Formats: sequence, C-alpha cells, structure tokens
Amino acid sequence: MFKMTNITPPKSRAKHIFRTKAIKLGPLTIGGGAPVVVQTMTNTDTRDVKATLAQITRSFERGAEVVRLAVPDKKSAISFAEITKQSPVPLVADIHFNYRLALAALEGGAAGLRLNPGNIGDPKNIRRVAEAAGAKGAAIRVGVNLGSLEKNAKAKASSLPEAMVESALAQVKLIEETGFENIKVSLKASSVRETVEAVRLFAQRCDLPQHLGITESGDLKTGTVRSSVGLGILLSEGIGDTIRVSLTGPPEEEVDCAWEILSALGLRRRGPEFISCPTCGRCQIDLPSLLADVKSRLADLKSPLTIAVMGCVVNGPGEARSADVGIAGGRGTGRLFVKGFEVGSFKFDNLAKALEDKAREIDMELLAAGAREENSKT
Amino acid sequence: MFKMTNITPPKSRAKHIFRTKAIKLGPLTIGGGAPVVVQTMTNTDTRDVKATLAQITRSFERGAEVVRLAVPDKKSAISFAEITKQSPVPLVADIHFNYRLALAALEGGAAGLRLNPGNIGDPKNIRRVAEAAGAKGAAIRVGVNLGSLEKNAKAKASSLPEAMVESALAQVKLIEETGFENIKVSLKASSVRETVEAVRLFAQRCDLPQHLGITESGDLKTGTVRSSVGLGILLSEGIGDTIRVSLTGPPEEEVDCAWEILSALGLRRRGPEFISCPTCGRCQIDLPSLLADVKSRLADLKSPLTIAVMGCVVNGPGEARSADVGIAGGRGTGRLFVKGFEVGSFKFDNLAKALEDKAREIDMELLAAGAREENSKT
Repeated sequence: MFKMTNITPPKSRAKHIFRTKAIKLGPLTIGGGAPVVVQTMTNTDTRDVKATLAQITRSFERGAEVVRLAVPDKKSAISFAEITKQSPVPLVADIHFNYRLALAALEGGAAGLRLNPGNIGDPKNIRRVAEAAGAKGAAIRVGVNLGSLEKNAKAKASSLPEAMVESALAQVKLIEETGFENIKVSLKASSVRETVEAVRLFAQRCDLPQHLGITESGDLKTGTVRSSVGLGILLSEGIGDTIRVSLTGPPEEEVDCAWEILSALGLRRRGPEFISCPTCGRCQIDLPSLLADVKSRLADLKSPLTIAVMGCVVNGPGEARSADVGIAGGRGTGRLFVKGFEVGSFKFDNLAKALEDKAREIDMELLAAGAREENSKT
Repeated sequence: MFKMTNITPPKSRAKHIFRTKAIKLGPLTIGGGAPVVVQTMTNTDTRDVKATLAQITRSFERGAEVVRLAVPDKKSAISFAEITKQSPVPLVADIHFNYRLALAALEGGAAGLRLNPGNIGDPKNIRRVAEAAGAKGAAIRVGVNLGSLEKNAKAKASSLPEAMVESALAQVKLIEETGFENIKVSLKASSVRETVEAVRLFAQRCDLPQHLGITESGDLKTGTVRSSVGLGILLSEGIGDTIRVSLTGPPEEEVDCAWEILSALGLRRRGPEFISCPTCGRCQIDLPSLLADVKSRLADLKSPLTIAVMGCVVNGPGEARSADVGIAGGRGTGRLFVKGFEVGSFKFDNLAKALEDKAREIDMELLAAGAREENSKT
C-alpha cells in the first residue's frame, strides 16, 4: 500500500559519470539515472508497532521515500510484518547476525533487506536469504561499515577504503552466485574522507547502485555538516542513487536534511526554496523573525518556488528580483518583487502577508498548469 | 592587539591543485597553502561599539580568526576605529558605494577592506583606496556577488559564473594597476552550483587567494546544509583559502559551522571530535542524552581527541575501539574503550563521568607532550 508523495518532479540528474544499473525497491527504481531516493531509519523499538508506524508516517510526510527498521529479534520480525501492512512507504529490514530474521522479514513484506553478509556468517545461509528475496522480488543492500569490517579484509588491503570495497565486492559476488541481481551497496565510515574515497573507488569498479551515508555522524549540528559535506561531494560527482543522512536525533530531521542536500545541488526539490541574507550592520529590519514568519506561512506550498527574503539595498533588490517572489528590506519597510518586477512597498508588519498572497497566487498558477499538462497527456 | 586563539595546529592541507599566492591580512597569511582561515561577520549596528565588540569577542571565543563589519556611514567608520583598538582579531571593513568610508576605515585600523569595486564607481576613487591600503599594509578583498553584478557583465558573458569571473578579473586588474598586490577575491551566489562553478573557473584563471561563501544561504538549517555542500565540494578540491559560512542567525553559529566543515574534511580541527550513531531499534541506552552529557563535560578540551559514543554491539565496539576514548552501549550499561583497549564496563549513570575522566587524562598527556615539544625547540 504505497501512497503518492507530494514531491515535485525531480530535475534531471547531474551528468552521470558512473551510470549504474537500475534495480527495484518496492515500486521505486534505484539507480540507472533515476532520481536520488531519500531514505531514513526509525529509532523506535520495532516491537512497538504503534510508535514505529507513527514515526514512519511522520517521516513519510516530511519526504522519506523508503524507511529502514532494525529487526534484531523474532518479536521485532513479527511486528515488522504488522507494520509493512500499514506503511505508506516501502520498508527495509536491517538484519545482523541471524539469517532467519531475514527470512522472517521477507515473509513479513520487506521491500528490501539490509545485510552485512560479513556477520551473517555461513555462505549457505546467505544463499538461502538471496533465494528467498528473489522469490519475493525484494532487494538486498550489502552494507559495509568500516566500524564492523572483518580484520582479515583490513589486513589484506592497501587502505581502509580499499578494504571496504574489497569486502563489498566479495559479498556481492557471493549473492550474485545464487543468480540474485537486485542488489545495491553501501560503504559507510564515520570519516567523511574515507567514505568518499571508498564510494568513489567502488563506483569505478562496479556498476551496482550505491546507497550513500556518513555513519555515526554525530548530533544534529555536527551530523548535518558531515553528511552535507560527504554526500554533497559524491552527489555533485554524479555518484549515489539513494541517500540517508544519519543523525543522532529524530528521523524526520534526517529527511529534512537529505532534501536540503538534494535541493542545494539542484538535483531534486520539495516545496519552495528560501533565499535570505545573513543580516549585517546594513540590515534595518528584523529579518530572522520575518523569515520565520514567511516560512511558516508557506510551509504547505508544493511548487518549487524560489522566495527571497533580503534585508538591505545592496544585494537585496538583485536577489529579490531574480526570485519568483522576493522582499528587499529597507528602514522599517520592504519592497516586494514578483517575477522580476517591483509590485509595491509595504510596512514591516504587512510584508509577510503581502509576500504570502503573491506566493500562493503563483503556486496556484503552477499547480493549475501542471494539471493542464497532465490532462493533455491523457 | 591580537590574542592567540586556542586552536589546535592544523593538519597539512589537502593536496593543493591550485596553489594560490600568499597574502597578508593583519598577522595572518591567507593563501599559498596556509591553513584555511575562518571568518564571520557581525550583524550588530556597527555604531554600537559595545554590542559589536561583545559579538566579535563571542565569535573569537568560538574560533573566528577574522571578523568583518559593515561600515555603511560615517558614524559607523568612527565606531569602527574604536572597535579595532579593542578587538581580539583582525577586522575587515565592508564597504559599498562610498570610497571615503574605505579611507576612513583604513585610518581606523582595518586589517582589510571588502570592496565591491563595481559599486564604488569611478576608477580614480578605487585607485585612491588601493594606494591608502598599500600605505597601511591592509588587504583588499574584491567581492563579487551575483545578486549585485552589473548588467553589462551578465550580457557579455556566456554564463553567470563566467560573468562573475570576468567581473572579478576586471576589478582585480584595476586595483593591480595601482601597484597594489595584497588582494583576495570572493565570488558568491545564492546558488551552490553557480558559486562552485564560478570559484573553480576563477581558480583556473588566477592565482589570487579566494574567500569562499554561499551568500544568502538561508536560516540555520538550510544555510548549514548549503554552505557545507558548497564549501565542502570546493575545499575537498583544494580550492579556498579563507571561508565564511553565511547564516540568517548569530555569527557564533557561522563560526561553529565553519569549523565543523573544516573538521569533516580533515583540514583543521578545534577541540575534540565526537562520533556517535544515529540510534536505531537496536539501541538500548538513551544515547542522545548521553552524548549531550559527554559533549557538555568536554566542551573545554583543547586537544583534537576522537570520542565515540555508540549505542549498540553492531558498530559500537569497532568505532569505540578506533577512537581515543569510546563507549559502546549495551542494555543499561556501556563498555569503555581507551586507545583500542577495553578498560571496563559501567552502569549508564556512571558512563559519562568515566569517559570524561579518561578523556581528560589523555588531554593532559597531549598538552604536556605539546609543551615538552615547545621547550625542546628553545
């Protein structure tokens, strides 16, 4: 049961230097030049069906397209089956150590599994899981984390990124030998540099789609920066088919951050984009409160409008003019621009409302235009 | 009057593909392979000496090495001269429209000027400013913002980044013709993609050091992501000699974010680095509160320790082992690791304190080792 999300159509991807194979994850295509898919992971106890579903739904509403759940024991696997029935997005089961939990999750409707084959152990059991996933049409992510890499792999390779890639390739081979092909791979380290190197190296050596993430990346502030830097570098090079931002915090924040990264790179956009100045000694209006007001008024807009909220006469008019709707602040007042033209001047207290009205007009026009386009296709 | 900051010695820069010329900004070297310098800008009214100095001091304490102030009128220029006398860091005056304010700021002790020569106008006045800056040993930043780019430049160039670069080069030429050479350049757009392209293009065509920033980048959340993505891409390519993160918020936050970016890339480090997991259904301890507790206990540490705070037995022990000090959580307890060895198991309530003690021991050792090294040099 997959609902449509309110996500605006993605722009075309950056030039894909490393074109990957396309695989299926539930109804989604991952890789092969498809839009980068946004994932997150619940941090509720999976056995708590109600809390977990509530968190999945909140994440979905913020734009999560795939959600991963830890399935560490049999009770979790039973709950997982309950949860998949009601989830608005495809779910991935995160499995460690015990292949039977993987089989149970597949029975329970997992769209995908995330395995660390290194800790599943016996190749015979990995083959069993691959066969079951094949029968169900599910995907398998081979997830290599530097933190849990086998000592053997580290000893043989010339560098840690090399060791991660070798480990991933060996595990992919094991699964592919069973005839299973619906595979994606992730290589994660808490060091941005090692993650970037490992992911690049893998992209040069294998055309399977990659899931990107900086693991153990820290609290909201640190994690946001580390993920933005690491994923930003890779995505800007055309590498990465699905992403998860890892934060020590609620998954909804991870989803917001993932969309901000995609939006910053011009890869995908969800709702309006806000441009505002950092404020300086030239600013003569209370810009942070104006920006917060504008953002909360327009939080429900679906079109990818560009909205500028600027504080002064130096860069203000230029930015405001090139946005769809923009304000350039002056002394207690502001000039309103729509699509490059100044349409009036407003007192501070009326500015946010004036901008909101114009933004909603354009939003309606764009939605109507979109609907006309849809109709003309049918 | 420049105080020493508590910043740990930078690691060597990433391989510098585009080695820039070194220039001087007060006591600092910018470019030529010197460590990337962290800047911010005040958002107080420059005429308010007390408030502005307080903000400069707060920014300095968080790691700002240069602070820029808007000098939009004569009163601000008079205050600026007061402020430079008491500032713990070199100050840059941000000048628009009026060259006389630039001359006043130089008289008032500016270590540098940030000019947009396009809006200063008459080349004769730009020459006057350059000559005065030369006499004072001050630096000039030619700051091109897409939002205030001359129409002419846009019309002639094949793309907006190209137009920004052409505009910067023309303005640099004008200043260099006066014999003045202590120049850095910034090319800023609110679009990450355009900024990255413009900065790369400039680096290919000119060896002057570059100041990086994504302008008008939005509130704390959006701005942090956009700056991390844009500056992360460029710095990872070895481009960028000084940076400012622009946020619609307090400058201290800009400074924190700048340091997080440099730390994520392994370019520079200020104090300990915290590695923590995003928590998932496997986590059996209250990790966010543990992490917050640990961070606040160790906020004053000066050494570049790596501290891991992990929630489970999958990636926990590996990450905790490879950190200087680390915790791997279990059910209501945690295992403590120091330099790769497990040193004990602690109840949840005692974990943060146990980790703090070990971290402080290592911090003291590192500081003592640093002091011995300093002594052996003399």
